[in-house]
Amino acid sequence: MIDIGIVGGTGYTGVELLRILAMHPASNLRVITSRGEAGTAVADIFPNLRGRVDLVFSDPDVGALRECDLVFFATPNGTAMKMVPELLDAGVKVIDLAADFRLRDQALWEHWYGMTHACPGLLEEAVYGLPEFNRSQIREARLVANPGCYPTATILGFLPLVESGVVDVDGLVADCKSGTSGAGRSARVDALMGECGESFKAYAASGHRHLPEISQLLEWIGGGAVNLTFVPHLVPMIRGIHATLYARLVRDVALQPLYEKRYRDEPFVDVMAAGSHPETRSVRGVNHCRIALHRPQNGGQAVVLSVIDNLVKGAAGQAVHNMNLMLGRPETEGLEAVALLP
Amino acid sequence: MIDIGIVGGTGYTGVELLRILAMHPASNLRVITSRGEAGTAVADIFPNLRGRVDLVFSDPDVGALRECDLVFFATPNGTAMKMVPELLDAGVKVIDLAADFRLRDQALWEHWYGMTHACPGLLEEAVYGLPEFNRSQIREARLVANPGCYPTATILGFLPLVESGVVDVDGLVADCKSGTSGAGRSARVDALMGECGESFKAYAASGHRHLPEISQLLEWIGGGAVNLTFVPHLVPMIRGIHATLYARLVRDVALQPLYEKRYRDEPFVDVMAAGSHPETRSVRGVNHCRIALHRPQNGGQAVVLSVIDNLVKGAAGQAVHNMNLMLGRPETEGLEAVALLP
Amino acid sequence: MIDIGIVGGTGYTGVELLRILAMHPASNLRVITSRGEAGTAVADIFPNLRGRVDLVFSDPDVGALRECDLVFFATPNGTAMKMVPELLDAGVKVIDLAADFRLRDQALWEHWYGMTHACPGLLEEAVYGLPEFNRSQIREARLVANPGCYPTATILGFLPLVESGVVDVDGLVADCKSGTSGAGRSARVDALMGECGESFKAYAASGHRHLPEISQLLEWIGGGAVNLTFVPHLVPMIRGIHATLYARLVRDVALQPLYEKRYRDEPFVDVMAAGSHPETRSVRGVNHCRIALHRPQNGGQAVVLSVIDNLVKGAAGQAVHNMNLMLGRPETEGLEAVALLP
Amino acid sequence: MIDIGIVGGTGYTGVELLRILAMHPASNLRVITSRGEAGTAVADIFPNLRGRVDLVFSDPDVGALRECDLVFFATPNGTAMKMVPELLDAGVKVIDLAADFRLRDQALWEHWYGMTHACPGLLEEAVYGLPEFNRSQIREARLVANPGCYPTATILGFLPLVESGVVDVDGLVADCKSGTSGAGRSARVDALMGECGESFKAYAASGHRHLPEISQLLEWIGGGAVNLTFVPHLVPMIRGIHATLYARLVRDVALQPLYEKRYRDEPFVDVMAAGSHPETRSVRGVNHCRIALHRPQNGGQAVVLSVIDNLVKGAAGQAVHNMNLMLGRPETEGLEAVALLP
Repeated sequence: MIDIGIVGGTGYTGVELLRILAMHPASNLRVITSRGEAGTAVADIFPNLRGRVDLVFSDPDVGALRECDLVFFATPNGTAMKMVPELLDAGVKVIDLAADFRLRDQALWEHWYGMTHACPGLLEEAVYGLPEFNRSQIREARLVANPGCYPTATILGFLPLVESGVVDVDGLVADCKSGTSGAGRSARVDALMGECGESFKAYAASGHRHLPEISQLLEWIGGGAVNLTFVPHLVPMIRGIHATLYARLVRDVALQPLYEKRYRDEPFVDVMAAGSHPETRSVRGVNHCRIALHRPQNGGQAVVLSVIDNLVKGAAGQAVHNMNLMLGRPETEGLEAVALLP
Repeated sequence: MIDIGIVGGTGYTGVELLRILAMHPASNLRVITSRGEAGTAVADIFPNLRGRVDLVFSDPDVGALRECDLVFFATPNGTAMKMVPELLDAGVKVIDLAADFRLRDQALWEHWYGMTHACPGLLEEAVYGLPEFNRSQIREARLVANPGCYPTATILGFLPLVESGVVDVDGLVADCKSGTSGAGRSARVDALMGECGESFKAYAASGHRHLPEISQLLEWIGGGAVNLTFVPHLVPMIRGIHATLYARLVRDVALQPLYEKRYRDEPFVDVMAAGSHPETRSVRGVNHCRIALHRPQNGGQAVVLSVIDNLVKGAAGQAVHNMNLMLGRPETEGLEAVALLP
Repeated sequence: MIDIGIVGGTGYTGVELLRILAMHPASNLRVITSRGEAGTAVADIFPNLRGRVDLVFSDPDVGALRECDLVFFATPNGTAMKMVPELLDAGVKVIDLAADFRLRDQALWEHWYGMTHACPGLLEEAVYGLPEFNRSQIREARLVANPGCYPTATILGFLPLVESGVVDVDGLVADCKSGTSGAGRSARVDALMGECGESFKAYAASGHRHLPEISQLLEWIGGGAVNLTFVPHLVPMIRGIHATLYARLVRDVALQPLYEKRYRDEPFVDVMAAGSHPETRSVRGVNHCRIALHRPQNGGQAVVLSVIDNLVKGAAGQAVHNMNLMLGRPETEGLEAVALLP
Repeated sequence: MIDIGIVGGTGYTGVELLRILAMHPASNLRVITSRGEAGTAVADIFPNLRGRVDLVFSDPDVGALRECDLVFFATPNGTAMKMVPELLDAGVKVIDLAADFRLRDQALWEHWYGMTHACPGLLEEAVYGLPEFNRSQIREARLVANPGCYPTATILGFLPLVESGVVDVDGLVADCKSGTSGAGRSARVDALMGECGESFKAYAASGHRHLPEISQLLEWIGGGAVNLTFVPHLVPMIRGIHATLYARLVRDVALQPLYEKRYRDEPFVDVMAAGSHPETRSVRGVNHCRIALHRPQNGGQAVVLSVIDNLVKGAAGQAVHNMNLMLGRPETEGLEAVALLP
């Protein structure tokens, strides 16, 4: 059994992590901390966990966390970086579901996140936790930066194209759409059902924090500079991300076998039949990314459709996948549910 | 392993049954039939089952079904009654998720369902598959009539009150609300998102087929005539039923211990703290019924709030619970998921 | 032209009042105040008003309001009562869309609203602004208490039954359902789309502030004590209220002509054909209440279905109707839109 | 008064046309035909029209239509072309809300619509009814082809860029999102709330009928060949289209003044402040297109965000605008409502 601690956990990423761990056969959840909810039973906030999670939120305390094998941070950006060094020193492995360790370039991180990094020395060591790109490093990691939701859907969609050098990386477009749970579970007017229900809009079209994260990965994958336009949108639904990706082909290439071969052994990437249209509901509650490929009018534009559940493959599920890798468990352990449809 | 057949299965009850069985450790799904979709892979219709269900719909054929230990009917009303006798004769156990065997009174059934019953001799033998009421009979049954969705939520909510004789059964009110998946997965204008989204309405207020089913059970439970007003409503969401139940107390009684005691050993009924308000999302995708009790202004009116997932506890999950009972499996086997929230 | 002031107006009631007044031919909106948004253009908060409302929110200031013919308060409870006396003294007519003047009994008001009333002397004078009940008093009023949303739908539904004495007023049940805009436009976790989307629940089942308001009116109408059980529910949609009302008949009576006669001359009450099921969308954006009547199984229980748009007939539209009456305008002026469907 | 006929009208475009005409001061709706609903009162199908539209659907009959000044076709593709010549001969003006007259190239039309055109001789005469492009021709037209919904949002968004020659028209991308009312009001499994609620997907990514329509217009506007990639998506809401448009700048140009100047005199195009994000709800129920401009990281990619209500500016509202132009009425007559928000 794995002794697990969670820091944070009152948000949507937190409840999803708890849901998945409650069904994971090797999970022994020992401690969950929350400054604001200390003393409250987890199941009183999240009624779906009644009868399944008996823990009570406790005050943040590194002492109890040091007893764990692995600690997840499901906290706002800027929290994990203050506690991680002490935990690593104590031999605890760490997965940060926030953004503190996602960018390797300290100055870039501080520009986009508007604060000084508390432990820049760990940026180099932290492993970007996208198993399809980084599996072997994750197995050896002490500290994993769990990818953002948009980056997961976008990078998995572009990866075979960029890796194989068949597209012009100077004009990539990622038009991405997310359900409202991506905005988190905090009191905000703009996330009210009265504000975002029955409506659709883009946001942060001039610049979103996931842009440098996606660009960094595509540059690692392609081995050179990329120029990406990334526009996120808010969909009036709760879960799900749909990335629609546009890339100009510089070589004639058969897209379908390229993707099928690249992802053949990946348990959580499903390349659908050519011409399919993946629905976000087809991955609701599960750790899969489903991808379909189009080449309209047989022209020079490749169109990739990529869907994930933002709270699972885009957050908590991928974190558990990383945990399985870091601790030598079977990769898909605890992640074998079937998506809830309808 | 249990050899299982499904007749029907292209509707929402069908896909939910497939989803649950795909995660059931003892399930060996051998055959699924559909007249309209014969030859189509199940996963081509329901993309959430990709990689998990390899079956292809086949033409309805009693031959293949006779080889099964148990056959589920997930068909429109009036289909099962034509095939069940032959399967029972072959020693196959049957669970009908439609209404063919839910009413014991043949004339009443024929009145509400508008057809002649094909095997009235089995109405007496068929066991009403509500484990909280009928567990021991279900264990012995060859043929189980799986309850309707509204009846499940309503009967579980009223049961302790009626069983203990503390309410006036002459003026019960069940104001029930269902998500749109209850209307099924067939082409209908009134179930379009453009028709039932962002709107709320009652329907069948003057008489719905689930009324005699609920009344029959409450009369069995209470041992006398009941007079129930039942008004169903359509909620602009996909899954979930919420029953709001009103009953006048004829004796002063402590509601909370009455319910807690009655359901203490029930794995799938959760009596929440007094004054709670269960949300349908707290049971999304799981086989639980959550109940909360109110007595406004400490007056003579008891108000019971009861929620289920109409496709799980209200259909496929309860069917698998019944299967477990009929075949001597652990009761909760395959039904241990945690509800998907948010 | 009517010189109009609005106090408050950053919530949903406010934007709806602005929308309706922007289309009212006699409206001259002079001032709108908001402590929090002073200096912000109205159209910057509510983009639907771009090009139609040029006003900027100003600091609350009785001076500017004294120049108006009529002032609407679209403020939280407890605000209007502090400013109303001075405005009345200045000869300004007032309509309060909040609850400050809805209950005639000061002690009852202070019990339910948890504060001391600032001008109890006006409670007697204030006219409850339900035109179908109080038209002539409204015409003469200086101060109108605009009814709550649930009370409007519920009282209009029960009115003919209670007025004619054909039901047992000791056991009335009002099972009411509201869209989420009823919770207002303030930052709250429980009104997030991630919390109230795709789910249904009751709330305040043990006691809601609209209960004494409804009871007061039904007692005025019926001339004696009533005993009402009122349970509100939250529907995953934005606009609309559906009241499902249950009353036991004490006399055999033809419901349909009773309602048709009572509401024959009412421009905003639509008695639908017997057996209909009104949809909330059929009144989306308009000031109508649509009502349908049922008597299930021809028994002793009357079931009344009543729908309104909570922001129009349940708030801003009714307020404008009251304004028209108070100022001698044609009753339906500015209220002649057709509901938006789908 | 204008004597108006409608052919079809049982779909969403039809009910929206009826809603708008019911509020149009010069409209005299004389006849509405429907093969399937002949004899049914319009208000029995569309309860929002109760008390406002007294007409009964009649059998299609050119005779009655010949008495009208103008006839709208709100029919499936392929219907109008069979009746239009006779009406034009009788001196009746015609607006076709379907696609029969949208493409000037007969072969192209027959390729995309899969049928033989019944009156190809009228393709040259028919005027494409986008007032912002074609106002003067519309004023003189006998026959107007009302634009498609995606084309309206997309063309208005691209128009100033293409017209001024500042972008590379060889690599335009239009990533468009529509509410489900765009799929119409006919019985289809894939438009059920259970299928398209709480999910998001692309469709027709390899080729959609609106592609040649958009391309034709952009080529007329730009005076040369364009190469457009157009991917439509389905949003789980009822009304609204959001077009996200990508174009590479070939010249450095200030986008904001370009758009503001181009649309300065247009009553129905609203160029928002630079960096805005228009919401579809800001045009719900109204004939406006709101546009905002972005140039991420001040790079070479222009991003245009364009929203309309697909049933108003994308169908019925634009048709009434065209009617006003064709008959010399004030342009905005009957189209002055304020959008319904929330």
